[in-house]
Amino acid sequence: MKLYNSPNPAPNPRRVRIFLAEKGVSLPLVEVALTRGEHKSADHMARNSLGQTPTLELDDGRTLSETVSICRYLEARYPEPPLFGRDDFEKASIDMWVRRIEFQLMSPVSQYWRHAHPFTAAVVKPQYREFGLSNEAHYHRALAWLDGELADRTFIAGDAFTIADICALTTVDFADWIGLPPPASCTRLIAWRAAVSSRPSAAA
Amino acid sequence: MKLYNSPNPAPNPRRVRIFLAEKGVSLPLVEVALTRGEHKSADHMARNSLGQTPTLELDDGRTLSETVSICRYLEARYPEPPLFGRDDFEKASIDMWVRRIEFQLMSPVSQYWRHAHPFTAAVVKPQYREFGLSNEAHYHRALAWLDGELADRTFIAGDAFTIADICALTTVDFADWIGLPPPASCTRLIAWRAAVSSRPSAAA
Repeated sequence: MKLYNSPNPAPNPRRVRIFLAEKGVSLPLVEVALTRGEHKSADHMARNSLGQTPTLELDDGRTLSETVSICRYLEARYPEPPLFGRDDFEKASIDMWVRRIEFQLMSPVSQYWRHAHPFTAAVVKPQYREFGLSNEAHYHRALAWLDGELADRTFIAGDAFTIADICALTTVDFADWIGLPPPASCTRLIAWRAAVSSRPSAAA
Repeated sequence: MKLYNSPNPAPNPRRVRIFLAEKGVSLPLVEVALTRGEHKSADHMARNSLGQTPTLELDDGRTLSETVSICRYLEARYPEPPLFGRDDFEKASIDMWVRRIEFQLMSPVSQYWRHAHPFTAAVVKPQYREFGLSNEAHYHRALAWLDGELADRTFIAGDAFTIADICALTTVDFADWIGLPPPASCTRLIAWRAAVSSRPSAAA
């Protein structure tokens, strides 16, 4: 297997790299330079018709895209430590938390990135700037909700580190990089972020 | 178990009802009237802190939200026929297709619904109407891409009906209901839609 990868600050490839680091697994990485448009090359479009990274290529040539789906496949290949849950309820509940992080947090962050950030102005035409800026308030509301949820547990989906923490950390870090740091009032979230950032995998 | 449900045209509860119909399973439904704001009641917020439907309640009182996560749990309880795939690669690939449908199709449809539709003008304040309208073109591009993908197979994720078809059908039907029918040029998609709509489960 090999992983078509792009460097930070792209949040999606980082999710797979953190996942692999938590598993103690090393895969060959093939760099796809987003800044040179290599993700839209014919070669890469043949691997992923949406032209995204990361993409996983198996030894038989079959490919998989979508970060969480790639991690789900890697979980089956390398089951320990479990990062998608152990029993049926836990697996569904962690899946719910991944989705909540993506829909509640990552969605407003990516709309802000597309429509309100100067870096994307050259590729997103037109930007709807007022709409873009309005996503900061959505993101802050979502963080306040998540901060409340963290009152009774150590990690996003319960008492163990899971794929939901990886999704949340990469989102919060990317948001910070584009100018949306978590508000100081989100004390539990900030403590959670410091804790998961101190894991060696966070440097992946 | 019981399912907190809302009637059509809400696309998410319908996804679970179609899933159950394909499984031949019947669960008690508890109606939550979105039009009366019952999803934001204290009772329902205790089941789902985001105040959404559907929500599944187990016999021991534990709850699960997020449509696909609920279906994932039901798949473990009622494995036949498999709707999330059989082997590890197929499971990851179907998961990828679910995510593609949600991010590529449902995301622009829901932004159009929120920001450009008169029904939501009373609750989404302010609406960013020009941004909302711009999502029609995004949705059409996504449908054209999906139409191309359907050149080599019968269903969204391969040669079997899966949860990805359920996600796509409910999205395309909801989009149609809000004024975004699929363009006539998407002939494969339109044929696929007719085929999956003729399954008894589509009436759920």
